[in-house]
Amino acid sequence: MRICVINPNTASAMTESIADAARSVAASGTEVVAVTNPMGPASIESHYDEALAVPGLLRVITEMEADDPADGYLLACFGDPGLDAAREIAVAPVIGIAEAAMHVATMLGRGYSVVTTLSRTIGRAEDLAATYGMAARCRGFHACEIPVLELETNPDTAAILTEACRDALAADGSDAIVLGCAGMADLAATISDKIGAPVIDGVAAGTLLLQSMAALGLRTGTTSGEFRTPPPKRYTGVLAEFGRG
Amino acid sequence: MRICVINPNTASAMTESIADAARSVAASGTEVVAVTNPMGPASIESHYDEALAVPGLLRVITEMEADDPADGYLLACFGDPGLDAAREIAVAPVIGIAEAAMHVATMLGRGYSVVTTLSRTIGRAEDLAATYGMAARCRGFHACEIPVLELETNPDTAAILTEACRDALAADGSDAIVLGCAGMADLAATISDKIGAPVIDGVAAGTLLLQSMAALGLRTGTTSGEFRTPPPKRYTGVLAEFGRG
Amino acid sequence: MRICVINPNTASAMTESIADAARSVAASGTEVVAVTNPMGPASIESHYDEALAVPGLLRVITEMEADDPADGYLLACFGDPGLDAAREIAVAPVIGIAEAAMHVATMLGRGYSVVTTLSRTIGRAEDLAATYGMAARCRGFHACEIPVLELETNPDTAAILTEACRDALAADGSDAIVLGCAGMADLAATISDKIGAPVIDGVAAGTLLLQSMAALGLRTGTTSGEFRTPPPKRYTGVLAEFGRG
Amino acid sequence: MRICVINPNTASAMTESIADAARSVAASGTEVVAVTNPMGPASIESHYDEALAVPGLLRVITEMEADDPADGYLLACFGDPGLDAAREIAVAPVIGIAEAAMHVATMLGRGYSVVTTLSRTIGRAEDLAATYGMAARCRGFHACEIPVLELETNPDTAAILTEACRDALAADGSDAIVLGCAGMADLAATISDKIGAPVIDGVAAGTLLLQSMAALGLRTGTTSGEFRTPPPKRYTGVLAEFGRG
Amino acid sequence: MRICVINPNTASAMTESIADAARSVAASGTEVVAVTNPMGPASIESHYDEALAVPGLLRVITEMEADDPADGYLLACFGDPGLDAAREIAVAPVIGIAEAAMHVATMLGRGYSVVTTLSRTIGRAEDLAATYGMAARCRGFHACEIPVLELETNPDTAAILTEACRDALAADGSDAIVLGCAGMADLAATISDKIGAPVIDGVAAGTLLLQSMAALGLRTGTTSGEFRTPPPKRYTGVLAEFGRG
Amino acid sequence: MRICVINPNTASAMTESIADAARSVAASGTEVVAVTNPMGPASIESHYDEALAVPGLLRVITEMEADDPADGYLLACFGDPGLDAAREIAVAPVIGIAEAAMHVATMLGRGYSVVTTLSRTIGRAEDLAATYGMAARCRGFHACEIPVLELETNPDTAAILTEACRDALAADGSDAIVLGCAGMADLAATISDKIGAPVIDGVAAGTLLLQSMAALGLRTGTTSGEFRTPPPKRYTGVLAEFGRG
Repeated sequence: MRICVINPNTASAMTESIADAARSVAASGTEVVAVTNPMGPASIESHYDEALAVPGLLRVITEMEADDPADGYLLACFGDPGLDAAREIAVAPVIGIAEAAMHVATMLGRGYSVVTTLSRTIGRAEDLAATYGMAARCRGFHACEIPVLELETNPDTAAILTEACRDALAADGSDAIVLGCAGMADLAATISDKIGAPVIDGVAAGTLLLQSMAALGLRTGTTSGEFRTPPPKRYTGVLAEFGRG
Repeated sequence: MRICVINPNTASAMTESIADAARSVAASGTEVVAVTNPMGPASIESHYDEALAVPGLLRVITEMEADDPADGYLLACFGDPGLDAAREIAVAPVIGIAEAAMHVATMLGRGYSVVTTLSRTIGRAEDLAATYGMAARCRGFHACEIPVLELETNPDTAAILTEACRDALAADGSDAIVLGCAGMADLAATISDKIGAPVIDGVAAGTLLLQSMAALGLRTGTTSGEFRTPPPKRYTGVLAEFGRG
Repeated sequence: MRICVINPNTASAMTESIADAARSVAASGTEVVAVTNPMGPASIESHYDEALAVPGLLRVITEMEADDPADGYLLACFGDPGLDAAREIAVAPVIGIAEAAMHVATMLGRGYSVVTTLSRTIGRAEDLAATYGMAARCRGFHACEIPVLELETNPDTAAILTEACRDALAADGSDAIVLGCAGMADLAATISDKIGAPVIDGVAAGTLLLQSMAALGLRTGTTSGEFRTPPPKRYTGVLAEFGRG
Repeated sequence: MRICVINPNTASAMTESIADAARSVAASGTEVVAVTNPMGPASIESHYDEALAVPGLLRVITEMEADDPADGYLLACFGDPGLDAAREIAVAPVIGIAEAAMHVATMLGRGYSVVTTLSRTIGRAEDLAATYGMAARCRGFHACEIPVLELETNPDTAAILTEACRDALAADGSDAIVLGCAGMADLAATISDKIGAPVIDGVAAGTLLLQSMAALGLRTGTTSGEFRTPPPKRYTGVLAEFGRG
Repeated sequence: MRICVINPNTASAMTESIADAARSVAASGTEVVAVTNPMGPASIESHYDEALAVPGLLRVITEMEADDPADGYLLACFGDPGLDAAREIAVAPVIGIAEAAMHVATMLGRGYSVVTTLSRTIGRAEDLAATYGMAARCRGFHACEIPVLELETNPDTAAILTEACRDALAADGSDAIVLGCAGMADLAATISDKIGAPVIDGVAAGTLLLQSMAALGLRTGTTSGEFRTPPPKRYTGVLAEFGRG
Repeated sequence: MRICVINPNTASAMTESIADAARSVAASGTEVVAVTNPMGPASIESHYDEALAVPGLLRVITEMEADDPADGYLLACFGDPGLDAAREIAVAPVIGIAEAAMHVATMLGRGYSVVTTLSRTIGRAEDLAATYGMAARCRGFHACEIPVLELETNPDTAAILTEACRDALAADGSDAIVLGCAGMADLAATISDKIGAPVIDGVAAGTLLLQSMAALGLRTGTTSGEFRTPPPKRYTGVLAEFGRG
């Protein structure tokens, strides 16, 4: 089985750390292919960045489907960018890390809290929670205000994030924490130990969900028509290559 | 890793079929222990049956926790009976098959339909869908009107159920089917092939979700207090053995 | 007319106090029969306790229906345990005290607050509020942290509870208080006087709702099939007596 | 105890029938005072009629409060006109018949259907259902298309209404019927017998709810401020008499 | 084009200020006719006042429709009194200032806060927000506790209101402010400058929405039947003149 | 005043027709600048197309903001692509035509129906309706199954679309129609005449909403931080030009 984990930003160092998180939980028979977005933003910290991360990740899926289709695709950015579009062009299941983490979190207690990077990204997380049916279960959104690419370099990341998680649990009366950025993947276990509560990293959770879906033989459904292959279309400009014959 | 799959009814033949469904998808390193409810109803087809299935399944968990705790417990009845209570007494995660199947289904398309046994059980399924945040994603509930214990003996089960699933997809404009009874586990693949849509059996899905949670080191959260070990309590009558010191 | 008030726990002293609360408001022509659960937990302070209170209360109803059916059944525990199952086996209406109190509370202002015993029981109350359509009206849940069986013996119960109610009104901007435990029934009037707001005890409210339903000739509806008599079923183990021919 | 039942329209014949419905269920110690709106529309079949029924019913309450306050006020029109305003000026509880019937209906099964007079009034009933938290429980709204004042004179009313109720149960999968007009009060029992399902008339239900609230000593809460006595205000024009010193 | 702005209270000074707010934004070809309610309360600060403001504003519309129909009617009180009734009797569109302001506010950010006069009016604003689908977008309701008719005379109105708006933004994490009273119309620009956030006055917003609707040729729809002309009806008492032949 | 209407697809003929629709309703002092997307799909009929329409429309806004900022930006595709991102980079308000049409439609009756091109686009429209708070008001989604670019060339478009609108009104019990594609803009008036109900074209509605917002001096709020200018970021690959210093 082969799971493709896509880092929607162009920071390859982060791709490595995401790949590690995915591989550390995947079964021995599961190959994890980690791909960095070949175009777009160095990190995703705005609606603008997120929108512009989508072409590249769709390109990654299109190429992999053409060459050697994966058994599942994971979008490793907490905004779950381009999820619906990706589902149209992949035969295998596609999930986002926010989607994966939020669903798992609801099975570990009554309510959970999301702890993310910059507060400006909370709006998107709220939208996703509503879309995924988590309005009642997702008790609060909290930001540690560390930019994405500083998560790895800031020596205080673990301490600041741990404190933010502890505060979130108390403020929201939650049973679990969802980490709101793929760049936090390596910290889940440490924080969980310190705060005494389950901490869900969507990269690891999503990898195992996809592995499970593949084992179950499940693929995105197309009977309503919404997720069928997009109609052929001519594309122009710098996006001409995205046209589908 | 050891996953305990509990058949909440007392029909041991059904336990075998549930165990098969779980084992057929579990990883090679995952041991599936299937346990039949030692007390209560032969099948669960009413709120009454479901309520009375709970003591036995809680007993199973209590004993396993005392002897040799599992890494996850699956409640293999689509009413997810006693789920909150089970979470209080198990250290490992506990999930229900309706919960497992409904969450997975939302990641395979926009909407899904539930196809169950008797129409009188639909009310419970509606309640669960609402509780799990699926009010918008769960597009319809349908009954094939075959009683639980006749699923295996009725020669027309596969045909009737397949037709019900096909009708449900069309009526609801859904992308996926959730099977509404653990006794339908063995039919998921066949029906999926016939109707050309993903069909989710909660036994298989739940087994893999628990396997994933265990691999992630996740356990039910207790920080809000709701899922902490129940306070000690004296029990009396035929339920005296349920008292907790 | 005869209303059966069931104390879902096995503490007969509490049954007496519940009976008093019911009788103090019932019409002169209404006989209140108070029954203590013949099996199960001494008090209900967890999902586990609540689940295990259900068999006994169903037994009480089954026996009464066989011998001399009541004109209404009140489940006098704020978790409304076994409500749907009870509705299947009783011909007369069955209501829970949380259900009764919450519905009455919405007719006395815009929002109300629930004040209960232990905070670990709040999750269940939230679930009930959502199920009863009270998501917008029920403004907050508060715990006084006095265990159920200490409500009567703790000399400070009235004072602590009054303060908790006063704080709840202010914090939530509520117009009314719903008491979250049958063991608080005798304090409703006193607290109401002290805080200057309506305080609803579900035991008294539920008794009068049932009396009203009986006067109206109303019984649980069975046309959808969900609340028809459960199908006959063999039961085994210590629950064998619950089998229905 | 004295319950004031207000007919919000000016048709005194209808007031008599409403009074009969209320008195037929009230306890022997409960006096039912039925009052016809002294001003406004002969019947209420539009938002316009409903809005203009409000001044008169507020006048009735104001005068009764000044002279000899009732222990409860029932607004006997299914649009529950002026409910919030009435709660500000009465000390005793005020409820509407839609409110009463809808709340009682939810305790008799999972879902109910509303059967009303003209289809143009369904929008208002939908609004009320949403406001009362019944979005999930109220499964459908149906009109028999008989104008309010023809309910009593049309020889086919019982037959047409019975058929509409039967159809509603089947179409909605409901367990109970709520009658959507005070003018249908006398038909509840007959229809119930014919369709084999509980049929709730808000006049009777509301009378008993108010009787219950009065027995419980409950009054509209004022702690949030919303339902305190309105601030003094000068009124002019034909409504000058409504000014409050 | 002619827009009729109705002041639902009888304070003609306030009508002038409302007219100014409307005229200051209307296009040069748009005539704004401002009308003071000919009967009812001097200001609207309770459900009682609001209910009794309705007859007069319906009268205004009825007369204008008979004489010289406007191209749009604006109900300039934040409770949007009589909106559904007004839609039945006007051919042109009718909107309320709360409706106008809340809809515009959602297009300027994720969440907005309402700042109104007296806290007792918040309940009504909550009801409207729910009715208009703003439950998720309307983040909070705040009162400055200045009575309606003191808004113009209190020398500290601007300062107090500005502070309340600033606090509301911070408390709610909002992107915009909706002013909760027509009497605040002249302060929108000033407050916006001071707090650095968009401040929406429903009088100005509603005037331009109506102007837009008229330019688009849009009128209230009548196909569902709900907003067709009310059926003819005899009216009596001081409201006799409201009868419709 | 200058309103920029962006056609998110690359079909310049459609841009002309959109521009006509906008100009035909704009005030004489309002200049409408219509811009065709310089890159991406020829039409938008899938999530894939929609995602890839976003870079180009963001480019249009970025360039216009740099050169000569407009007073409002309208995204003239019913999927409202890139709306949140666009709000971050424009100072003036940005709205989508689905957003505009849906909000206006709620002020013209109780419920409305959306009639769109291909049924596969309905999922996106459902998501938008939920996001905009229209879950209760938007009664149904219907497709005429004419591809976007055939709307102008198919000689039966007007007839097919008119019939679909008429059917939608009846099926949903709606008071208004919302056209689900910018390419239908020129048909709104004709269809409205034929079906006797308001038909809202988002291009015209959105143009006037933006004109109104500009007249009111309203701009997207930034106080919550979500819609502030995106943080500077390096972009690579074919999207390198999207980097922000």
